[in-house]
Amino acid sequence: MTNSPWDGGLLPEPALPLSSTFEGFLQLSWQTLEDQNAGVTFQIRDDLRQPLGLMHGGIYSAVAETVASVATMAAVWKNGMTASGLSNTASFLRPITTGTVRVTARRRYCDEREWLWSHEFHDDQNRLCAVVDVWMAVRPRPA
Amino acid sequence: MTNSPWDGGLLPEPALPLSSTFEGFLQLSWQTLEDQNAGVTFQIRDDLRQPLGLMHGGIYSAVAETVASVATMAAVWKNGMTASGLSNTASFLRPITTGTVRVTARRRYCDEREWLWSHEFHDDQNRLCAVVDVWMAVRPRPA
Amino acid sequence: MTNSPWDGGLLPEPALPLSSTFEGFLQLSWQTLEDQNAGVTFQIRDDLRQPLGLMHGGIYSAVAETVASVATMAAVWKNGMTASGLSNTASFLRPITTGTVRVTARRRYCDEREWLWSHEFHDDQNRLCAVVDVWMAVRPRPA
Amino acid sequence: MTNSPWDGGLLPEPALPLSSTFEGFLQLSWQTLEDQNAGVTFQIRDDLRQPLGLMHGGIYSAVAETVASVATMAAVWKNGMTASGLSNTASFLRPITTGTVRVTARRRYCDEREWLWSHEFHDDQNRLCAVVDVWMAVRPRPA
Repeated sequence: MTNSPWDGGLLPEPALPLSSTFEGFLQLSWQTLEDQNAGVTFQIRDDLRQPLGLMHGGIYSAVAETVASVATMAAVWKNGMTASGLSNTASFLRPITTGTVRVTARRRYCDEREWLWSHEFHDDQNRLCAVVDVWMAVRPRPA
Repeated sequence: MTNSPWDGGLLPEPALPLSSTFEGFLQLSWQTLEDQNAGVTFQIRDDLRQPLGLMHGGIYSAVAETVASVATMAAVWKNGMTASGLSNTASFLRPITTGTVRVTARRRYCDEREWLWSHEFHDDQNRLCAVVDVWMAVRPRPA
Repeated sequence: MTNSPWDGGLLPEPALPLSSTFEGFLQLSWQTLEDQNAGVTFQIRDDLRQPLGLMHGGIYSAVAETVASVATMAAVWKNGMTASGLSNTASFLRPITTGTVRVTARRRYCDEREWLWSHEFHDDQNRLCAVVDVWMAVRPRPA
Repeated sequence: MTNSPWDGGLLPEPALPLSSTFEGFLQLSWQTLEDQNAGVTFQIRDDLRQPLGLMHGGIYSAVAETVASVATMAAVWKNGMTASGLSNTASFLRPITTGTVRVTARRRYCDEREWLWSHEFHDDQNRLCAVVDVWMAVRPRPA
């Protein structure tokens, strides 16, 4: 797939230039974007680190929020629906300091109003470093 | 208080220039830093937004992670301990699109190994927009 | 207050004899029932224990679920609304093996659709043993 | 397998007669008990219901707490370790009023100190009604 899910017409037109947004800051490389699976990779950089040199814990939460939001929106927008985050729960298992981070998301639940995505974060030695669950609300698009 | 808790000697020496880190990116203005209370404010900017113009959900999680980490570290580092995040749970109540965001954190629990911080995010009309709970692990500093 | 919030006309008529339900099994003693605060006490008994003799972890979750549900329903039923649980998050801090357990609940958030209650469980030496957050959905009563 | 995991020597000797404990009250029928998968079924009865006739929300949390605890303990006790619950997070998707409930648990994470179990609850029409995540701490047995 292309590296930007915003290119394919699946998502609403951005209201801002993508490069100026937090998505632009994150610089995720999309690997998978399907109704029940999604995945990205990204490189650790200084501006993703906290002052002691580890990847900042909030980056796990933020990347998962983006993955769940984009994957849900890409599945429902074409049907006249929109998606927004309800909750985001991250558990931190092992710090990451350098290299490429691989994020895989699996849709664990889906009904007419709520979707649950579970994300796993692996470092470049394939160790599980965090799990993040995100609940999305799916609603009809406002008129 | 000063705007940087890293100035007062309460925190470990940064391994990276602060301005190059994710803390530098967030540009938080510290209002309160006490053992049981902490608070910051920050301005919404395009690079804190998702493409539709709302503040990105991950920013709530990330700011709370910073507030809880800094506040815990500032309380325990001087006693030979260090702090790291265990989990981060955000519930999103109302979107924020512009203005100043005010974050207040209250320590809800503390024992010899774990601290729980609850954060509230208010917009500049003083509406509660998100709540985020962060569990921190407190351990002896590695030798 | 009386020991049963089901006596005062604030709650919908039970569909089952109370004593036959799980509420009957729990035998909670209601101490406080207000829009923003609620509290119960109960005694540890063998049938609230797991096989090693500690209070079963699920009892924390279950008691909090009851407290949040009853307190929300008591506040909204008279206005034509009903309440149901969305999620229940318990963190276990210290085991309880015997004595009286004291549960205090504080409403942390409330809008037209969702309420958040935070519960603290103390043992009879006044040590905090668990915290439980419960989100309730509030909706118009079905016709 | 037999209906009681307490029969096979995998678990520590109960300190109380099982039938007198909360496990005895729940009357779970064990279907699967493996290192990475576990499952039980149980029947809805009045004393598992709340006063309006639905299964009490706390029963989801409590059953998952038992399943995760027993499955972890059965895997680690023989190696000189013990297990205790850290947190329990339930999301309620659809009420159950009657019939047989089927609970399947999958181990999502495991390291030398923490295990994460995810549980799904299905009703007897095979609809997903709740998901519950339980974190267990695994530690050396006290001497």
